[in-house]
Amino acid sequence: MNAQIISIGNEILIGQIQNTNTVWLAQQLSLMGITVSKMLAISDDILNIKSTLQSISTTTNLVIVTGGLGPTKDDVTKHAICEFLNCKFNRNEVVLKNIKKIYKQKNKTLSSLNETQADIPSKCSVIQNTLGTAPGLFFNKNKTLFFFFPGVPHEMKLMFETGAKKEIKNRFSIPNILYKTLLLHGISESDLSIKIQDWELSLKTDKLSLAYLPSFGQLRLRISGTDQNKQALKKRINNYYKKLIPYVDDYLIDASDNIVEDLNIEKVVQQLLIKNKLKLALVESCTGGYMSHRITSISGASQFYIGSIIPYSNNLKQQILNVPFADVIEVKGVVSSECVTIMVQHANQILNSDICVAISGIAGPKGGTNEKPVGTVWVAVGNKQYTTSQKFNFTSNRTQNITLATNNAFNMLRKFIIKYY
Amino acid sequence: MNAQIISIGNEILIGQIQNTNTVWLAQQLSLMGITVSKMLAISDDILNIKSTLQSISTTTNLVIVTGGLGPTKDDVTKHAICEFLNCKFNRNEVVLKNIKKIYKQKNKTLSSLNETQADIPSKCSVIQNTLGTAPGLFFNKNKTLFFFFPGVPHEMKLMFETGAKKEIKNRFSIPNILYKTLLLHGISESDLSIKIQDWELSLKTDKLSLAYLPSFGQLRLRISGTDQNKQALKKRINNYYKKLIPYVDDYLIDASDNIVEDLNIEKVVQQLLIKNKLKLALVESCTGGYMSHRITSISGASQFYIGSIIPYSNNLKQQILNVPFADVIEVKGVVSSECVTIMVQHANQILNSDICVAISGIAGPKGGTNEKPVGTVWVAVGNKQYTTSQKFNFTSNRTQNITLATNNAFNMLRKFIIKYY
Repeated sequence: MNAQIISIGNEILIGQIQNTNTVWLAQQLSLMGITVSKMLAISDDILNIKSTLQSISTTTNLVIVTGGLGPTKDDVTKHAICEFLNCKFNRNEVVLKNIKKIYKQKNKTLSSLNETQADIPSKCSVIQNTLGTAPGLFFNKNKTLFFFFPGVPHEMKLMFETGAKKEIKNRFSIPNILYKTLLLHGISESDLSIKIQDWELSLKTDKLSLAYLPSFGQLRLRISGTDQNKQALKKRINNYYKKLIPYVDDYLIDASDNIVEDLNIEKVVQQLLIKNKLKLALVESCTGGYMSHRITSISGASQFYIGSIIPYSNNLKQQILNVPFADVIEVKGVVSSECVTIMVQHANQILNSDICVAISGIAGPKGGTNEKPVGTVWVAVGNKQYTTSQKFNFTSNRTQNITLATNNAFNMLRKFIIKYY
Repeated sequence: MNAQIISIGNEILIGQIQNTNTVWLAQQLSLMGITVSKMLAISDDILNIKSTLQSISTTTNLVIVTGGLGPTKDDVTKHAICEFLNCKFNRNEVVLKNIKKIYKQKNKTLSSLNETQADIPSKCSVIQNTLGTAPGLFFNKNKTLFFFFPGVPHEMKLMFETGAKKEIKNRFSIPNILYKTLLLHGISESDLSIKIQDWELSLKTDKLSLAYLPSFGQLRLRISGTDQNKQALKKRINNYYKKLIPYVDDYLIDASDNIVEDLNIEKVVQQLLIKNKLKLALVESCTGGYMSHRITSISGASQFYIGSIIPYSNNLKQQILNVPFADVIEVKGVVSSECVTIMVQHANQILNSDICVAISGIAGPKGGTNEKPVGTVWVAVGNKQYTTSQKFNFTSNRTQNITLATNNAFNMLRKFIIKYY
């Protein structure tokens, strides 16, 4: 079972956007046990799209196309489909109703141009788009199943989940593929690969695969395999997983039977906070709200998160969090164990939180000194009894230092809760 | 002058990595005036690579291939080149010397496997890799110029800059390509395309291109064209740009002559704040720190940004920002004009800021009511004299509602500064 992913859009070919749709689709298809044999990006040009569709080999089972389904003149995918299938447009009343509904919700006037989004190539079936005005389309030709989605990521993703997945599973017999993904923190790819080399060898001899996915202080490790017997495969993978645990126990944050999705440290922290009925507050200086943003990206954050202070200026550190000027700011500096410790302790009093994380550092590219170069970050975690602090020395750029500081702060918070509750 | 970019690597096809090489190469080629007609990702398989190389049309001028040049068994690109060119490997002493030098620098022992990286297909020329052990390769076949680089981004980039660019410019006469990109806020792709349809038609008649790139309430509009005469082309594009202004004036945030340079609203706001010597504070409830994160992602934010309060819980809104419980929170609710207005006014006093933005709303998926459904967001902007507030009704998911609220808050801030300063 093999598939091709085709992206249509001049903005991709000039390097204006990073093509995240393709990566997501490749992950989804891999997860389903489908081999992606080719990815292709082509321009918004009718002849080009048509000839690309025509050139797809009859041995390709599945083709997923994104982009070029908007209402404007530069979006021509639908016209290319009509030429490829040799059919005409029919206005689809269900699609039109959805478009009208969306325009009504947004209090906008529907133009005749918008209405043309309900014109569907007559040989295509429709996947309704509840999030936008361009529906998904699919059809069979020469034993190949074709899907077309608009390039807007969240619309494409929802239609793939709700409309395409079932259709693909019904149509093809796909071998079982199973995954086990581990989220680790604090060990590098190369250090780990030396540590587990014997285990990795035996895993591969047993026809299972291993992938290392490093990202900002974290490392995702994915075991995968295919087998006709799903239960036997699951047992085999779990066996290797259990043998791996002793090597990675110190670094293991979470594990999942899924491919990459859903494994993140903020969700682990969320569960720990809810389980222990703890109210969290954050004090972010150099990370400037990124940790708060990550925590509040989780639905239901109000159950455990009460809020943050971002005392970016030194004045605010004094004014809102009563960091002593003479003893701390002037003598120790704002990037110090003393400063983050006091901010944690005061925040827990002022905001009435049970537990607090404070971060202060130099994200860069400017602001470093010989003693405290760019990348120096102090993090403290504490409740009303204990506070612990740690210094980090990152060596990346501004954005990466902010992400590294945040990931490490989450891990300190996780360890603190496990230790004291 | 057209080019294809080919990426080789199984890790790309399973969605394990975001293919940043392709984006970078596409940007470089576009800036050189070369049209990228196709991007392709294929697996590490000799037959597959060979047949892909064979299938490239003789009308393609340039092919750039990355990946699969490492020393391990799964890297087979060089073998595919030998089969494609019908030639053998020769050991290249200059390359071998470089490999030995790099191993010595890293204090590592050179294996015979590593030495094979100096084996070069005899019909290829070499681009030395000063950063790694796999050299770049190039050759001409059937009027097409082929380049091969290892997939390691910084090695590929350096070899492209130092070895490939000059070779390409010497070989082809490349037309000038110029761009003008506009960042708009508050008008949809389809509404704009109706508004400017006559202008767009005349633009295209004059052989210039237009692309619409929508994203969360914002719209990037890109005019581009190619011409032998660079000055004439620049004048032509600027002429159309000037004619466009009256149509988009209300929505125009920024414009740039570059293709990829991040046109973003936070940079525009940054310039306005610095120019007017204003100190900004933020109060974020439903956006949970995302606006603060965006502002502090810009280097030098401390020049104009003093900090934020994220009063996620209603308690904190009372405690830190003195929002009256009886008159406001109980009667009007925290998602109200009254609440965001008071938060702005109090924050300007408490934090001693010149200007403040406050956001309160229901990001979803839960927490909505009939009167205030998910997506209802109030934003206020004010200084010590004036405060203005606005209600938004977004209809997307949690992450998107947060992004939409933030983009709109930035735009309200921008308009406020333009109006009052």
